[in-house]
Amino acid sequence: MMRKGVILLAKKVNEAKLGLLTGQRNYRALRAALAELNDIDVAHFLEDLPEEQQPLVFRTLEKDQAMEVFAELEAETQQRIIERITDRELSALMEDLSVDDAVDMLEEMPATLVKRVLQNASPETRVLINQFLRYPENSAGSIMTAEFTDLRRTMTVEDAIKRIRRVGEDRETIYTCYVMDDQRHLDGVVTVKDLLLAQDGEKVEDLMEPDVISVQTTSDQEAAVRLMAEYGLISLPVVDRENRLVGIVTVDDAVDVLQEEATEDFEKMAAMVPSDKPYLKSGVLSLAKNRILWLLILMVSSMLTGAILGRYEAAFEVIPLLVTFIPMLTGTGGNAGSQSSAMVIRGMSLGEIHSRDLGAVLFKEVRVSLMVAVPLALVNYLRILIMYEDSAMVGLVVSLAMVCTVTLANSLGGILPILAKLLRIDPALMAAPLITTIVDACSLLIYFGIAVSLLPL
Amino acid sequence: MMRKGVILLAKKVNEAKLGLLTGQRNYRALRAALAELNDIDVAHFLEDLPEEQQPLVFRTLEKDQAMEVFAELEAETQQRIIERITDRELSALMEDLSVDDAVDMLEEMPATLVKRVLQNASPETRVLINQFLRYPENSAGSIMTAEFTDLRRTMTVEDAIKRIRRVGEDRETIYTCYVMDDQRHLDGVVTVKDLLLAQDGEKVEDLMEPDVISVQTTSDQEAAVRLMAEYGLISLPVVDRENRLVGIVTVDDAVDVLQEEATEDFEKMAAMVPSDKPYLKSGVLSLAKNRILWLLILMVSSMLTGAILGRYEAAFEVIPLLVTFIPMLTGTGGNAGSQSSAMVIRGMSLGEIHSRDLGAVLFKEVRVSLMVAVPLALVNYLRILIMYEDSAMVGLVVSLAMVCTVTLANSLGGILPILAKLLRIDPALMAAPLITTIVDACSLLIYFGIAVSLLPL
Repeated sequence: MMRKGVILLAKKVNEAKLGLLTGQRNYRALRAALAELNDIDVAHFLEDLPEEQQPLVFRTLEKDQAMEVFAELEAETQQRIIERITDRELSALMEDLSVDDAVDMLEEMPATLVKRVLQNASPETRVLINQFLRYPENSAGSIMTAEFTDLRRTMTVEDAIKRIRRVGEDRETIYTCYVMDDQRHLDGVVTVKDLLLAQDGEKVEDLMEPDVISVQTTSDQEAAVRLMAEYGLISLPVVDRENRLVGIVTVDDAVDVLQEEATEDFEKMAAMVPSDKPYLKSGVLSLAKNRILWLLILMVSSMLTGAILGRYEAAFEVIPLLVTFIPMLTGTGGNAGSQSSAMVIRGMSLGEIHSRDLGAVLFKEVRVSLMVAVPLALVNYLRILIMYEDSAMVGLVVSLAMVCTVTLANSLGGILPILAKLLRIDPALMAAPLITTIVDACSLLIYFGIAVSLLPL
Repeated sequence: MMRKGVILLAKKVNEAKLGLLTGQRNYRALRAALAELNDIDVAHFLEDLPEEQQPLVFRTLEKDQAMEVFAELEAETQQRIIERITDRELSALMEDLSVDDAVDMLEEMPATLVKRVLQNASPETRVLINQFLRYPENSAGSIMTAEFTDLRRTMTVEDAIKRIRRVGEDRETIYTCYVMDDQRHLDGVVTVKDLLLAQDGEKVEDLMEPDVISVQTTSDQEAAVRLMAEYGLISLPVVDRENRLVGIVTVDDAVDVLQEEATEDFEKMAAMVPSDKPYLKSGVLSLAKNRILWLLILMVSSMLTGAILGRYEAAFEVIPLLVTFIPMLTGTGGNAGSQSSAMVIRGMSLGEIHSRDLGAVLFKEVRVSLMVAVPLALVNYLRILIMYEDSAMVGLVVSLAMVCTVTLANSLGGILPILAKLLRIDPALMAAPLITTIVDACSLLIYFGIAVSLLPL
């Protein structure tokens, strides 16, 4: 990691220098220093400044950099800056900002500020923004950008490269170009690599790939980014109902979506309402709010388990030893169920497991659980024989209950996520916490059911 | 999803046609039909064929397509094909295959086959392959590709574009070009976009960005892809100890690594040994093997909880009602701990939470748990008052135990992953299953501790 160490050191030196310059209000030197930095690093630098300094430093940035940095800032910082800049600066910013970044920003803003922002945008930008604002949350339309590079099929390679050189500055990516007809229908795709490796006189229509992988504006964003991951695409075209090209999803946004979707699954699988913000930046109140609902639901459900225990009070008054095996049985059952549900939920969100695989999953889980449960039951049987006198029958009860519990837990863990999907419930909810609660109750019923029939209770 | 529906339909039609052609052994028509398909789709098509047909169909592919398709096949299919092709075909394949794909393939192969493959590679390729084979697993070196586009700082834009047009065919990506000196030291980075938007006579050194974000061959692959995600890079240079450029990580490989690392975390957090294969393709034996170790460890640990219960047999013989609240207390404690550990583990693997944040996490968790536990305790207290006669004291015991258990569980869930990291243990192991087992034991100690001091036991 030496090289990275060097970079980090250089970063720290720069930050110190920048801090100094900001403190001294030497904005001219600061502007020059910031111009040398990566836009992302400038955004981090701005975020770390005291709030009142943020707009001042932002205004010292060069125009091109300002727009790139602005897009990387957090919503609160963007707001603070917009509140402090003039209408003219705002209107310049709005023309340079890509539509998707503008929309992301507007979605987080109070209504009065939204009004001012829209008033300072050009009519064309306003129309585009309004169109983007209408795409449903988590749709491909909501993560696409309108700044793609378009070509015509009749262009030569020379024409195409000329056009790219002319319009490329404002485009999110120039590397994948989309071929459209006069009605903006998507006709094909051609990469800059194809163009550069071809002869100047060749026609775009001879180079382009006519079978374009695309999604609709209303498609799920997860489906869109999964398609990009599967085919290794650096951009994905998004079309409307009439197959007219309206935008593209770029790979950097796709990576963000993949990370967010995985984080959401982690949170849902741990019985939380997903949050928008990183943990350290989340308030205590919002963390508590995201957690309490499921804790309450699961707590009330576990009262059922308590009631089952209560029903068998008589049994453990006769043989108190039975009680000591409860945590082991319910615990192992819960863990087994968590294992199978985690695999199936993840497989479903990677698109590897589908609803039609229900039978295959169940068959697999039953076989796996027998292979796993029999050794666990044997270990238990031997331990009980060794540790307690006259315990052969108790050992048998515990071992049988273990095999049944693990088999049931694995089966439930495997099929509940798939059933949830069929019922249009999020499969990620069928994870450890819910499975554990269900398995707790079932394992007690199994355990005492077997105990009552085999032991003199 | 109309558009996607159309694509899927076209796909199905194609597949039927291809199936027909394969059945009739009309390889000429098949070759033409496959040439029109995306390489990934051809790979899927091959995988779905009966095993004996795979090598036959593979050999009908056009040379360029064959290499691209081969890289996308699964290890078993690659092996079957290699076993059936001639040495000459093999040696052509090895020269076209990119080094990282060749290495991925060799790592899965039996030694005799590896020997034959290496014998049929050119000496240069063999040297490169051997070098790549030495990079540690999960290092940046192990996921990089050697086929990058290099330029010199003294080149003009015209020279640079000429060079790209000449060598681009064999390069994994041409869009980000790396500027090296005679000793292959990494001097800067310039994008094809920069080159295309500049004038022909401009110098590469004036256009390039000299502060290149890079990693070392031995850096962790997760750190490398996290850097790419943070800075939105489509390729990342990998250098050796002397800052000589040896390869690049491309964004499509980075996306795969991100997905794999998330899947690994899901599996570890559900107490499984991570697997290489998708669930449906994993054998029952290997699934069972991945699961049984942790089940056994946790089962033995939960015997401790059983022993604690055993110690308090006397208590629940006096007040049997106490037993019915155990599942609720241990369950809620386990769920609360899972919530905080899931957030902290995910935050750590996204690079948002670091070891230095231990104190901040603990402080946050204690506050969150009080906000969450007090309402839960109140609900319980009221329920117990209403449902059972003369139960004010039992209600108080349960409620107090609830607050203490949840606070302890949240705190453990928050700090154990961080402590694990400090001890160089994988934080993902400190997830629901282990936390639940620990919290089970602790919550019983708390519960009976409070019960013994407040109730006449």
